[in-house]
Amino acid sequence: MRIVELSAFVAAPLGGATLAALGADVIRVDPPGGGLDIDRWPLYEGRSLYWEGLNQGKRSVEIDARSEAGQRQVAGLITAPGDGGGIVLTNLPVKGWSSYSELSKLRRDLIMVVITGDLDGRTAVDYTVNAAVGFPWLTGPEDHDGPVNHVLPAWDAMTGFLAALAIVAAERHRMVHGVGQLVELSLSDVGLALTGHLGLIAEALLVPDPRRRFGNDVYGTFGRDFGTRDGRTVMVLALTPRQWSSLGAATGLTGAFSELESRVGADFRREGDRWTHRMPLFELLDSWMAERDLAEIRVRFDNHGVLWGPYQTVKQLVSEDPRASTTNPMFEKVDHPGLGRFLTTGSPLRFGGVERIAPRRAPALGEHTAEVLREFGLEN
Amino acid sequence: MRIVELSAFVAAPLGGATLAALGADVIRVDPPGGGLDIDRWPLYEGRSLYWEGLNQGKRSVEIDARSEAGQRQVAGLITAPGDGGGIVLTNLPVKGWSSYSELSKLRRDLIMVVITGDLDGRTAVDYTVNAAVGFPWLTGPEDHDGPVNHVLPAWDAMTGFLAALAIVAAERHRMVHGVGQLVELSLSDVGLALTGHLGLIAEALLVPDPRRRFGNDVYGTFGRDFGTRDGRTVMVLALTPRQWSSLGAATGLTGAFSELESRVGADFRREGDRWTHRMPLFELLDSWMAERDLAEIRVRFDNHGVLWGPYQTVKQLVSEDPRASTTNPMFEKVDHPGLGRFLTTGSPLRFGGVERIAPRRAPALGEHTAEVLREFGLEN
Repeated sequence: MRIVELSAFVAAPLGGATLAALGADVIRVDPPGGGLDIDRWPLYEGRSLYWEGLNQGKRSVEIDARSEAGQRQVAGLITAPGDGGGIVLTNLPVKGWSSYSELSKLRRDLIMVVITGDLDGRTAVDYTVNAAVGFPWLTGPEDHDGPVNHVLPAWDAMTGFLAALAIVAAERHRMVHGVGQLVELSLSDVGLALTGHLGLIAEALLVPDPRRRFGNDVYGTFGRDFGTRDGRTVMVLALTPRQWSSLGAATGLTGAFSELESRVGADFRREGDRWTHRMPLFELLDSWMAERDLAEIRVRFDNHGVLWGPYQTVKQLVSEDPRASTTNPMFEKVDHPGLGRFLTTGSPLRFGGVERIAPRRAPALGEHTAEVLREFGLEN
Repeated sequence: MRIVELSAFVAAPLGGATLAALGADVIRVDPPGGGLDIDRWPLYEGRSLYWEGLNQGKRSVEIDARSEAGQRQVAGLITAPGDGGGIVLTNLPVKGWSSYSELSKLRRDLIMVVITGDLDGRTAVDYTVNAAVGFPWLTGPEDHDGPVNHVLPAWDAMTGFLAALAIVAAERHRMVHGVGQLVELSLSDVGLALTGHLGLIAEALLVPDPRRRFGNDVYGTFGRDFGTRDGRTVMVLALTPRQWSSLGAATGLTGAFSELESRVGADFRREGDRWTHRMPLFELLDSWMAERDLAEIRVRFDNHGVLWGPYQTVKQLVSEDPRASTTNPMFEKVDHPGLGRFLTTGSPLRFGGVERIAPRRAPALGEHTAEVLREFGLEN
């Protein structure tokens, strides 16, 4: 499969990187000097680590699409013949020569996936969508006054993965029916759809007094962060009856839990009851945790199958956690010229029937311009 | 396409709901009385709005898979003949009769997508993955001490969308090559892969002093929440030079920005410079915003193409925002027996070449047991 990507920032580049990691030939086209995201922080040695991460495994072509000659080249690339070609992914404005109607004159079975902010054409980005759908009022410390943004660009990422799904679904449709199509999705609709799927829209419409902000307490069940004696923080949860009894067994608190159960008339096998009475439950576990170091807790919790995990900074993740190392088959150390050799991710999807594609670096900007134009006979 | 889903909570149910919204026949199989998530909060009239949202458009079958007869029925459903069948999606433990090796004896071209916590088999959930990959130390008010969890189950959602991608990709592969396969993905690997793609792993490895927590300031560029005179909060960003000049024009602050530029020797067309000098820039905008109401700001910002959006609670979203209403073609009011008629989402993907599937309610638990068992000749 060959995908031409006209993109910037997160959603479309991630969609392209997702398919590149599965073996697709993804050709990102940028204006000379790079797109809007070429200098996006974090930087290292003057290079964007963000760009490097979001463009792994692609080919990079620089074309000046302000000129007609450049437009012909980009259009030629997008609509070049071949079974797996004729696919374009973009989160930039498409109009005129780059519109679906114009490009599909050059290749009738064109597939174009267009990511927008709002579907009505207004600009929206992860942060404005997040502000709109309500999560910043539900996130953050209970006593905090204002909204709390996520730092993870979650809506961008979901939109990127859905765009990858759209491409594969449209290409499958083309294999069966012989026709291409325009697929549109917006960050805003992705945010709204997920807010709906999680029951929050129904809750806001039906429940007179919907949930408020609860800090790190996991709404409706048992879960929160706890401090250890040696100054670490761990997340502990019990979402199922089995996890609840594991937690009692691992901590020796089963008796104390039962006592509380009879005192308040609750059944802690039910997650609603664990939620309602979370404060005294948290206190019991707080005291237990505060008397123990992470190392001891780790052994006890793992032996009993408690659902838990330590909080880590990204530094701690890459230095302490074997999952973020080459013992995890998803990762390899890859040489990134100018940046060095470092841990680089492949696809989190492990297809049993297909050989795994090794993680790849991002291209240098324009690295494949000559090669690609020659390959498609598009030299000026 | 027909998908049998053995699932609970978010990731697998969302993967199934995503494909159901695109027209797949998704049959969720639960034990009698429902799975682990049947009573998940928020509740309304004793019913889980969460379950209702995550199972839209599916058929529901109750089978007791602890009995051999039940196992035969589930296996029969999964491996029933037909081009689009032979697909199972699960985030429950698979072993014995439900393993890929056993089920693929009944249908050789079986596709099975298995979502786990960690790929090494340890239980992990959205919250423990989030704790591991570092975002809780980057999220939340700058002066806050502990980790700040996201409330949005972002890793679950991404994993669900990637599982949907895996199914369509594996089915396409089967169409071409005639073979099925086992596809595995873990919440943990999804978290790690995205942390890599966003450049955070490279940053932690290469940059001596990686970013810290910056509250709602958008790292490396211009963006933050601002209060209005009438007590609302809005998100304002300028990610591009054009958005930066729009902001100056809309607020009349272009001159003040230029003055600051010369005083500190910066070029605010560069996002790095907007970031470095954000404090005095924020002050200028803070004062401007505090003197105006949301209504005035809305008009000014929209006229000038500023990148912005108001913060809304979910209640405000459903009562004030036309995007969360039936004027958005993604939504329809749907009758959910026992809950009422309310705004319900369809797919955020708009395929131009295929008729849009109308939003559908979730099934009642077991609503389709008899129908499905009859359809596949699996009555006892």
